[in-house]
Amino acid sequence: MNEKPLILVTNDDSIEAKGIASLVKAVEGLGDIVVVAPDTVQSGMGHAITIHDPLRLKKSDIFGDVEAYTCSGTPVDCVKIAIYEVLKKRPTIIVSGVNHGSNAATNVLYSGTMSAAVEGAIENIPSIGFSLLDFDKDADFDASIHYARIITKAVLDNGLQKGTCLNVNIPKGTIDEIKGYKICRQGRAYWADQFDKRKDPFGGEYFWLTGEYQNTDKGEDTDLFALDQGYVSVVPTQFDMTAHHLISNLNEWEIK
Amino acid sequence: MNEKPLILVTNDDSIEAKGIASLVKAVEGLGDIVVVAPDTVQSGMGHAITIHDPLRLKKSDIFGDVEAYTCSGTPVDCVKIAIYEVLKKRPTIIVSGVNHGSNAATNVLYSGTMSAAVEGAIENIPSIGFSLLDFDKDADFDASIHYARIITKAVLDNGLQKGTCLNVNIPKGTIDEIKGYKICRQGRAYWADQFDKRKDPFGGEYFWLTGEYQNTDKGEDTDLFALDQGYVSVVPTQFDMTAHHLISNLNEWEIK
Repeated sequence: MNEKPLILVTNDDSIEAKGIASLVKAVEGLGDIVVVAPDTVQSGMGHAITIHDPLRLKKSDIFGDVEAYTCSGTPVDCVKIAIYEVLKKRPTIIVSGVNHGSNAATNVLYSGTMSAAVEGAIENIPSIGFSLLDFDKDADFDASIHYARIITKAVLDNGLQKGTCLNVNIPKGTIDEIKGYKICRQGRAYWADQFDKRKDPFGGEYFWLTGEYQNTDKGEDTDLFALDQGYVSVVPTQFDMTAHHLISNLNEWEIK
Repeated sequence: MNEKPLILVTNDDSIEAKGIASLVKAVEGLGDIVVVAPDTVQSGMGHAITIHDPLRLKKSDIFGDVEAYTCSGTPVDCVKIAIYEVLKKRPTIIVSGVNHGSNAATNVLYSGTMSAAVEGAIENIPSIGFSLLDFDKDADFDASIHYARIITKAVLDNGLQKGTCLNVNIPKGTIDEIKGYKICRQGRAYWADQFDKRKDPFGGEYFWLTGEYQNTDKGEDTDLFALDQGYVSVVPTQFDMTAHHLISNLNEWEIK
């Protein structure tokens, strides 16, 4: 393609997050950039879409000359409204993030950042979600900018197979501290949830969802292992959730 | 296991939906039943969790003698709070639905009903999501009750492989009209979205997400094909979203 790439940038931490400013910086000069991002924090929204409320879209000048909009919906809503209402042509690539916090392993399912990328894959647009293993709102994104840039360039050069996107997680640390990147599979892990039970001023009970992430996967080819060893993890991710290996087994069942 | 199964029932259409009442009916007598379901409609919530708000839990007598609670969160929140706060032991099985409307093909990603089942799989609890291809709030759930019962029994008898759950969709129609069931893969399809653009009374623009579902998959082994032919579709579904077949390909890239 000789045409200038059109790069759609989104995230789930809202347009005001340092992470998306870092991602805009990362892709500068790689093509025409349009940002469509949530107007409020949308962490943990997974692949949610807004069905029962209308969506609002507003132009934003937060990135100066870079065309930008806020949307009142979820990250997936942002991708949909960008493709079908904002952009004059289909984007060449969608980049989402850089998320403040890990989206490795099963976090891919809860992640608004990654759901935006998965939505891109469903739309058959090469898409990447980036996440930094640092929840701090002032986190150091320098290494993220470096890796987001070279991985975006690689996807622009190589394309991505239909139905897939990339889940990229970046460990805390400087570019020199990070050892490189590894292509991985999604680790098996789960949240051992705990609920912090409290009483409101009127005696009513309420709960805060908390918990600890438990890695139950001993594999050395997982994203969790790579990150633990100081590498950026890159997981090719697909929206086909079929457990293909179980189809013949289930065909042997007698369900009646 | 000789112990009586503990069956957790949830959904995304709220505890007041006809679909969940039908599912409670479907599993009657198969074990001890506890319902934990959203207090409001949570359609399209995907795998969203509630991080920035507290959750409320209330006892409900909507199902008479059947122990039931409403939760102010998403379907995935319901599963988490049920496992970690409500139930005295881990459930033997989680059943979710019966959803009013299809969750076949890529709808699995947007679906709160299926996300509850996928959360069960992450927790290593055999789980099934059921959906009827009828959005009507007074839809006829008789065939759904029949299939939900025999499929739940089959899963109680056979178990489900770690990391997997079932996505069951039931066509409209009577038990006699439905031809049986088929084990399928998730079809490739997407929403060709359209936004219905309107003006509010104050001149502000807003958008309703609408659209048409486009089946781009000609396969005869998909859930969409089975449903179209009048069969119940059963898709073994996993939370591992790795595109394993791409790992070696990506390893050949030079990213720098």
